[in-house]
Amino acid sequence: MHIDLKRGSSKTLPQQISETLAQRITSGLLQPGARLPSVRGLAASLRVSQVTVSKAYDDLESHGHIICSQGQGCFVARRPHIQQDAGTGWQDGYDDFLPRAQLWRNFDFSGVRYPFHLAAIHAELLPLDFIGAAMSRLVTGKPELMASYGNFQGDAELREVMRRHLHSRGVEVHSSDIMITSGSQQGIDLVARTFVGPGDTVYLEAPSYTGAIDVFAGRGAEMIFVPMDSEGMRVDVLTRLCDKRPPKLIYTNPTFQNPSGVTMGITRRQRLLELARSYRCLIVEDDPFSDLYFRKPPPLPIKSMDGDGHVVYMKSFSKVIAPGCRIACVAAGGNILSRLIAAKSASDLGSPLLNQRAVLPFIAGRYDTYAGQLRTALRGRMESAVRVLKRYAPPGVTWNVPEGGLNLWLQLPSADGIGKLREQAELAGVSFLPGDVCYSGEVSSRHIRLCYSQMPEGDMEQGLRLFLQLLTEHLGAERHK
Amino acid sequence: MHIDLKRGSSKTLPQQISETLAQRITSGLLQPGARLPSVRGLAASLRVSQVTVSKAYDDLESHGHIICSQGQGCFVARRPHIQQDAGTGWQDGYDDFLPRAQLWRNFDFSGVRYPFHLAAIHAELLPLDFIGAAMSRLVTGKPELMASYGNFQGDAELREVMRRHLHSRGVEVHSSDIMITSGSQQGIDLVARTFVGPGDTVYLEAPSYTGAIDVFAGRGAEMIFVPMDSEGMRVDVLTRLCDKRPPKLIYTNPTFQNPSGVTMGITRRQRLLELARSYRCLIVEDDPFSDLYFRKPPPLPIKSMDGDGHVVYMKSFSKVIAPGCRIACVAAGGNILSRLIAAKSASDLGSPLLNQRAVLPFIAGRYDTYAGQLRTALRGRMESAVRVLKRYAPPGVTWNVPEGGLNLWLQLPSADGIGKLREQAELAGVSFLPGDVCYSGEVSSRHIRLCYSQMPEGDMEQGLRLFLQLLTEHLGAERHK
Repeated sequence: MHIDLKRGSSKTLPQQISETLAQRITSGLLQPGARLPSVRGLAASLRVSQVTVSKAYDDLESHGHIICSQGQGCFVARRPHIQQDAGTGWQDGYDDFLPRAQLWRNFDFSGVRYPFHLAAIHAELLPLDFIGAAMSRLVTGKPELMASYGNFQGDAELREVMRRHLHSRGVEVHSSDIMITSGSQQGIDLVARTFVGPGDTVYLEAPSYTGAIDVFAGRGAEMIFVPMDSEGMRVDVLTRLCDKRPPKLIYTNPTFQNPSGVTMGITRRQRLLELARSYRCLIVEDDPFSDLYFRKPPPLPIKSMDGDGHVVYMKSFSKVIAPGCRIACVAAGGNILSRLIAAKSASDLGSPLLNQRAVLPFIAGRYDTYAGQLRTALRGRMESAVRVLKRYAPPGVTWNVPEGGLNLWLQLPSADGIGKLREQAELAGVSFLPGDVCYSGEVSSRHIRLCYSQMPEGDMEQGLRLFLQLLTEHLGAERHK
Repeated sequence: MHIDLKRGSSKTLPQQISETLAQRITSGLLQPGARLPSVRGLAASLRVSQVTVSKAYDDLESHGHIICSQGQGCFVARRPHIQQDAGTGWQDGYDDFLPRAQLWRNFDFSGVRYPFHLAAIHAELLPLDFIGAAMSRLVTGKPELMASYGNFQGDAELREVMRRHLHSRGVEVHSSDIMITSGSQQGIDLVARTFVGPGDTVYLEAPSYTGAIDVFAGRGAEMIFVPMDSEGMRVDVLTRLCDKRPPKLIYTNPTFQNPSGVTMGITRRQRLLELARSYRCLIVEDDPFSDLYFRKPPPLPIKSMDGDGHVVYMKSFSKVIAPGCRIACVAAGGNILSRLIAAKSASDLGSPLLNQRAVLPFIAGRYDTYAGQLRTALRGRMESAVRVLKRYAPPGVTWNVPEGGLNLWLQLPSADGIGKLREQAELAGVSFLPGDVCYSGEVSSRHIRLCYSQMPEGDMEQGLRLFLQLLTEHLGAERHK
């Protein structure tokens, strides 16, 4: 278990430990019944005295957060006893189902000059003029679009455009098998709320997309992370795991995976589909990046081989053309889609019709040419980021050169102090995504994700140099601890 | 239990009964373990022979949907045995968490000429020119807005505008206590996914908003419907119910309630808040209609009296100014809001910034004047609808004259055949909302909801006359059965 301690803080070390653990317990990140590390073990890993940890545990116990018993250890209490009675104090005892909420509340990226944390494409690369003009024409010529809820499944014409698009990528579905969603984030959420309940087993790649983890966590799923190698998720390992715990759902991001950048080979894709068939479960294939390849096109989506409706395929146009319009599509067969449409109706009564119509002409007519230009531009950024890394990265830091997508996935020599590095970097105006949020629960990761495409190229290089300088100092300080 | 039977159909009556029940079981509307009506009882209520019902039950049992035992009756099986192996047949055995999905899948309103089913305001009454012009200016002048995810909580300037708006309605909160959502539907959903889990008790008015019921059902909540009278929810009854099952959450729509049109008095509002205090639970106060009063302003929101953060207040601007922009706000105190913001991030990464900015100038500057004009227009429609009702409604049909909002709530002499009436009306181009969807599970309601504001006035009168003619024929036919 890792806790960032600030030695110059006005709070004592026992206070810092106790408050951090109380937060994790209140937010559910540490579940009731979970065993805390031993006093000796935690003291060693935090490099503090056993007295310090003992004081923190005493404090937690006196507030009802944990229960300690001689010889057995300390455990998270079923529910903290709340003593406050006035004001909003009652709220602390009001249970929620958001185990990872605390993680996000701790992030504040406002005022960051070099935002490397979010996987996004900078406005200067996006076709905003074209889509803006389409929107202008619509609000003037068809203002009634703003009065319409559309229908739950999405505009029929846009679904037909999506169908043709998927067809050109090897995915053969009817437009009636397609639903429009507000970004793939909503698609994942709809699948989870429809099909995943408390205790259901969901398999994901290790690491995985943090937004998907949040959603499955919120449904109370049992998430199991499957290791990856250079060919993507280790389907052989997954098969063994499924023998013990049959899957309700497998979530994968097989192409230029977020965050690792790895692409799953064609044989693995086939095996994964066979596995889903034999376990009669769903695969969610989240595919935001397959058009953003740098050398050769990636393998066809798993959905292209799916005859029995095992794959719910999600293709986002949100990141790639206009994040603010939030348009993605979900393709699924049989009665899976109709159940998802019902969930969509309960979620938001359908995506805004204006946004759907505003992106339609672009996707129908210009998208393929644009995607080619975007690939060239992104490849250029990736290559200059890699040049900066080669020149300025401190020894012991490694990365893979991505074949597509928006992210670099750096490996540091150790996970120690990454929380502190993040704070220091943010003070200097640089943000990044720490690898530990790409897993559920308490893990410590020595990876970090940097997005090279959400700033103008010059800013990106400058910000990356600044970050690498901070990283060099950080590693030097860690070595001398 | 009601089942619509078509006597001229190519399917036999046992087939129709068996298929309808199988659908309800597969969708979860009939839960595992639920007892089916006796053969004799169902035969009597459907006016068919006992042999017909027996055949249907035999068929359901042979497909594994139900289990019958001599002398004990028939019960929904834990999980139907699925025999198909090819194609998408496996999907029928793939569990979902959408018990009411089947309801929506049966609705098809496309091609309806007189849409009375959806509570909405017709485009000709909405300020679409103004909002369209704002949007045009934004996409031309600030195209980068389309590239932005905004932040999870919502645009700070819009939140300040919302704060001033709420202040003028007696609700005193900071702009940091406000979050922007994509319609109130999303707000309800965020509260439910954050705070409501399987088996939690949620109290609602009987009847209630169908979109809220869907959301709580999807979380596996135990919903209890509290009767209403002319002063709104019977808080005395609620108090007795809470003694037996403490509430996790109380959902209310206290002003011009959807669907009944009833407004909760000030004393009840106070009592409801006291109840929430003593049970340390949340009240969701859904308030889409309070600006749409016809005579005098309604009582202040419950939120205006809330000092301890018990009320999550939802104010939608979506229906009232531009449904396609999907803008609403949620106001909540203490740490409740920060937990909802975390849920919002996992749901959609924040509402589209462009839409938020497009409605901002209107809400800030023109909304109050506009609301006054809208009230006059809606009151006119309501009054002409009531005139048509008085003149053409068949005997035995009653309604209340609403003090505000968008709906009429009609009471028919009996619930018999309302499903058939709906089908006939839709063939004739008229849609309405049957009252039974305003409850969870299998209830039979003799109410229907008609919205008088989603058509031009002449169309509305014409459609209503047509509907009343169909209703007169329907009641005549029912009487002679």
